[in-house]
Amino acid sequence: VRIAILGVGLIGGSIGRAARSRLHAIVSGYDPDPGVRHQALELGAIDRAVEGPAAAVADAEAVFVAAPVGQLQSVIATALQAAKPDAVVTDVGSTKRMVAAAAADERFVGGHPLAGAETAGVRHAREDLFDGAVWYLTPEQNTSGVLYERLHRLLVGLGARPTAIDAETHDRVMASVSHLPHVLANVLVAQAAQALGGGERMPHTGPSFRDATRVAGANGAIWTDIYLANRDALVAALDDTVDRLSDVRRALQNADAEAVAAWNDAARSDRESLLGAGLAGGAVHELRVSVPNRPGVIADIALALGRAGVNIVDMALSPSPDFRQGVVALWVRGDDQARRAETLVAELQFPVARA
Amino acid sequence: VRIAILGVGLIGGSIGRAARSRLHAIVSGYDPDPGVRHQALELGAIDRAVEGPAAAVADAEAVFVAAPVGQLQSVIATALQAAKPDAVVTDVGSTKRMVAAAAADERFVGGHPLAGAETAGVRHAREDLFDGAVWYLTPEQNTSGVLYERLHRLLVGLGARPTAIDAETHDRVMASVSHLPHVLANVLVAQAAQALGGGERMPHTGPSFRDATRVAGANGAIWTDIYLANRDALVAALDDTVDRLSDVRRALQNADAEAVAAWNDAARSDRESLLGAGLAGGAVHELRVSVPNRPGVIADIALALGRAGVNIVDMALSPSPDFRQGVVALWVRGDDQARRAETLVAELQFPVARA
Repeated sequence: VRIAILGVGLIGGSIGRAARSRLHAIVSGYDPDPGVRHQALELGAIDRAVEGPAAAVADAEAVFVAAPVGQLQSVIATALQAAKPDAVVTDVGSTKRMVAAAAADERFVGGHPLAGAETAGVRHAREDLFDGAVWYLTPEQNTSGVLYERLHRLLVGLGARPTAIDAETHDRVMASVSHLPHVLANVLVAQAAQALGGGERMPHTGPSFRDATRVAGANGAIWTDIYLANRDALVAALDDTVDRLSDVRRALQNADAEAVAAWNDAARSDRESLLGAGLAGGAVHELRVSVPNRPGVIADIALALGRAGVNIVDMALSPSPDFRQGVVALWVRGDDQARRAETLVAELQFPVARA
Repeated sequence: VRIAILGVGLIGGSIGRAARSRLHAIVSGYDPDPGVRHQALELGAIDRAVEGPAAAVADAEAVFVAAPVGQLQSVIATALQAAKPDAVVTDVGSTKRMVAAAAADERFVGGHPLAGAETAGVRHAREDLFDGAVWYLTPEQNTSGVLYERLHRLLVGLGARPTAIDAETHDRVMASVSHLPHVLANVLVAQAAQALGGGERMPHTGPSFRDATRVAGANGAIWTDIYLANRDALVAALDDTVDRLSDVRRALQNADAEAVAAWNDAARSDRESLLGAGLAGGAVHELRVSVPNRPGVIADIALALGRAGVNIVDMALSPSPDFRQGVVALWVRGDDQARRAETLVAELQFPVARA
């Protein structure tokens, strides 16, 4: 199979590596930066580096547009113009209605792999980047079924789990689970900076503030584009957030303990169903383990639970201010597994409690 | 020194253990639950368990009220009534204006140790729980200077860093850096649950949603009290949050890329100054390291940086969905240290990038 990749950064480069190694594909790559093209070639992410997008696309059966969100529409248009009549063209952008509207062509299927946001650049491209990752596809009414199926098989070959979703739902869900958390992180730090006053030091208040604001001020070059590309879904999510904050505000002002408790309990069960769904049955339990900060502690715990067949749904490590000790939160599904995990951790002599 | 502790859970029990071991104090303990009293005695958290609060307090030079927030005011009143005229009485509640208003007695100093929120129960009490922890004290105009100084020295003896703060500032800061993050976590999961629709599964969207919602639905028995006790400061923080969300909303709706970028950049510098303040100079840099999920990886990185004198300001570990690999975010202060850290990690053969 012949594949073209327009934009050989982390995502484009990883597609190239996986396609060459796993599908024995012949990969043409274009990037506006000649240095990047050269690097991609050297690293084995592509078979040949070409001078322009049309040349890359000309004989390809599948075209991946991995350009920044702000340039997606024009690069997709270029790709569709140059691609063969029976080629499938897709993109990897994080919002999908925008490209769906721009590419009313039966050969186009919007795509969004949920992988690789951590690093950038072709030097971090990895063959296994998409292993087990959801790869959203947003077919439209006029999308060719044959080409959709070809793309689906290609993605499975890359290690991903292609999942069809309509573009509108995709963007709404991304607004809620990705873009809104970023906005709230930004708001939280601004709020705290004001509450603390100029130059005052952040008190050590435990991990909640750090956890909640880890993504504050995320890479501006990328995130300004993402916010704007999905702005109407994000505005709707913001409106909903403000409504919910008003409800809490009212309960607080009325000192309505019952309403506050019910709201808090609902959040607990929402989180459990959101982050636990799709796994074995039962509620997710949180265990908090106090551990010394020495090598191998996390490994010891993970191995002990692994040997006993206890699956760790999620984990979070919070070091103490002086890094001498820390707390590991472990989420385990089901009463049985939680009890077993608690016993196993206690046997390792670490203080453990259900949160 | 003779000390009384009313409420011997995690905090009360840890005060007892540290006071007995480090200050050679004689500790009387009371808890409304006879089983807990007995356990505290057995674990060495107290020297004697007494049947009522007045008996515990009678001959004490310092009284620690470690009752739940909802019962603080009445237990403090009981303690003040029974305590000697030259005894100092303090509490460990997470909001401070409430108790300040209730205890207009020169012997009373409000207190709040920033430690120990992770686990509960005297069985997790530790002598070193307060080591290096900020312990806020909220003296009022009429507080006895002699008694304040005695309490201060006691807390230093327990390993803590007592820090005076006025009750109003304390509650405002806690609203921003602790209570508001909890509210926003709850709102985020409710919002996402609605966006996803009933029964739909949470997509793997990277760590931002998990990080932002780790504290969603925190222990309702404790948090309903905390929210309500600090409700006016929290309402003010909510109002400020809504204002800030409206500003973002406007910038998004106007597709004002410049305003969005500036707002995002401001958040980055706010977070850096909040979480980095008080440490060596320079901006905090975030390095993201892709690592295999095998024992000792984190230790290897931490040790390599430690040997080179690079201080890790903060760290966060995000496993991939299948736990086969993960990303470690490291925050390092100063250009020099960041560069050194990047080189050291690269030498360990882990992909690393500035975020």
